[in-house]
Amino acid sequence: MTDNNSPTAGLLIIGNEILSGRTQDVNLNAIAKKLGSVGIPLREARIVPDVEKEIVSAVNAMRSHYTYLFTTGGIGPTHDDITVDSIAAAFGVPVIEHPEARALLLAYYGAEKMTTARLRMARVPEGAKLVANPISAAPGILMDNVYILAGVPDIMQAMMDGIVSTLRHGSKLHSIAVSGFVAESLIAVKLGEIAARFAQLDIGSYPWVRDSKFGTALVTRGTDETVVRQAADQILALVKEFDENAILLVE
Amino acid sequence: MTDNNSPTAGLLIIGNEILSGRTQDVNLNAIAKKLGSVGIPLREARIVPDVEKEIVSAVNAMRSHYTYLFTTGGIGPTHDDITVDSIAAAFGVPVIEHPEARALLLAYYGAEKMTTARLRMARVPEGAKLVANPISAAPGILMDNVYILAGVPDIMQAMMDGIVSTLRHGSKLHSIAVSGFVAESLIAVKLGEIAARFAQLDIGSYPWVRDSKFGTALVTRGTDETVVRQAADQILALVKEFDENAILLVE
Repeated sequence: MTDNNSPTAGLLIIGNEILSGRTQDVNLNAIAKKLGSVGIPLREARIVPDVEKEIVSAVNAMRSHYTYLFTTGGIGPTHDDITVDSIAAAFGVPVIEHPEARALLLAYYGAEKMTTARLRMARVPEGAKLVANPISAAPGILMDNVYILAGVPDIMQAMMDGIVSTLRHGSKLHSIAVSGFVAESLIAVKLGEIAARFAQLDIGSYPWVRDSKFGTALVTRGTDETVVRQAADQILALVKEFDENAILLVE
Repeated sequence: MTDNNSPTAGLLIIGNEILSGRTQDVNLNAIAKKLGSVGIPLREARIVPDVEKEIVSAVNAMRSHYTYLFTTGGIGPTHDDITVDSIAAAFGVPVIEHPEARALLLAYYGAEKMTTARLRMARVPEGAKLVANPISAAPGILMDNVYILAGVPDIMQAMMDGIVSTLRHGSKLHSIAVSGFVAESLIAVKLGEIAARFAQLDIGSYPWVRDSKFGTALVTRGTDETVVRQAADQILALVKEFDENAILLVE
């Protein structure tokens, strides 16, 4: 689907609130779409609790596997914000106060409102650079190939908006969905034959239920727009054997 | 927070559609809440693509770490449904046709509509048991401590509803949230002192933004309801120093 030189990404979501079910994560989806728009496929995501050992282990397992690793969450001023310390530990470097981050916080809060807690947000792993935060003062952090981002979706997305143009872009994936009222088991064999003919494409079959009726969305993705369209046209013809109102949607 | 004999869970979400951003995952949140309601904390989640090597590696990394591992996705009849084969490979066992699953599918579709593709959904790793599917015919699968569930949320949840009473339950966590318009940096130091006094509890601080104003939700969780309430009352008093309308919510 992508050549060996294509950039790839991993995502590490840090936060007890996601694992407890208290908060529905929306960062994975936003990051996946943003990276996908510049041809960087998200290959894996992990969600770990606010436990240093777990964060260290996941960071070190993931950062060597992908061109970029993104983390979200745990960079605030409170006792449960342990991402910076954990990632420093993963890299085996100390945590230092970044002078530019300190200056940013001072300018934002003013000297009279600068507290010890707020100054905590100037702490970075030694050797790290800052990532701009256009919404509040505390910056994100770039440590080697690891982008350490906020967990609050608005702030995370604003950080990503600034980062994305600086990343190495890959070949954009074209995606066409065919959807109709047909149980996927009825088209599975012929769909498999189409998938075999278009082995360079990623063809996914996603069943859905609407008004207690079964339908399937068939999504074809690949870098060559013409070939994607050819495969999608064959899939559309197949689905129309069962639902003449089946639709084709260029995504 | 929980004793060493407490059951734990991991979750493996299998699906290109989640990683591409095409589909917003909702299964993690539903499973986390369902397991939390019977005292089984979800400790980790991973999302991997429809690639056997990635699935095998994640299953083997996670199944030995947690009391239960749940997987969602990839058990349908199409070419991209490779979960059963991948989990069999993870366990080093062949895939067999389960007679009871075959009978279920036959009863549901009828002999005349039984296709090769549909029969694929009777395939299980050797040694596995079936998990009831109250919505459609294809069963889920229990292999050792690994529950292999559908990816369609309605079907996954119906399977979980049947499973949950059979699991070993842990101590239920009580959770109280305090929320108010205060930047978390203003309460971080005193909050840290409260967290240190109640080291047996999990106290999380989650900033939010509403109408461009910063607020914080402070969530206290633990097995002893009385102690959770004591900590939450102290946090409420702290937040009320900044927002007299701060609220306390037993979750």
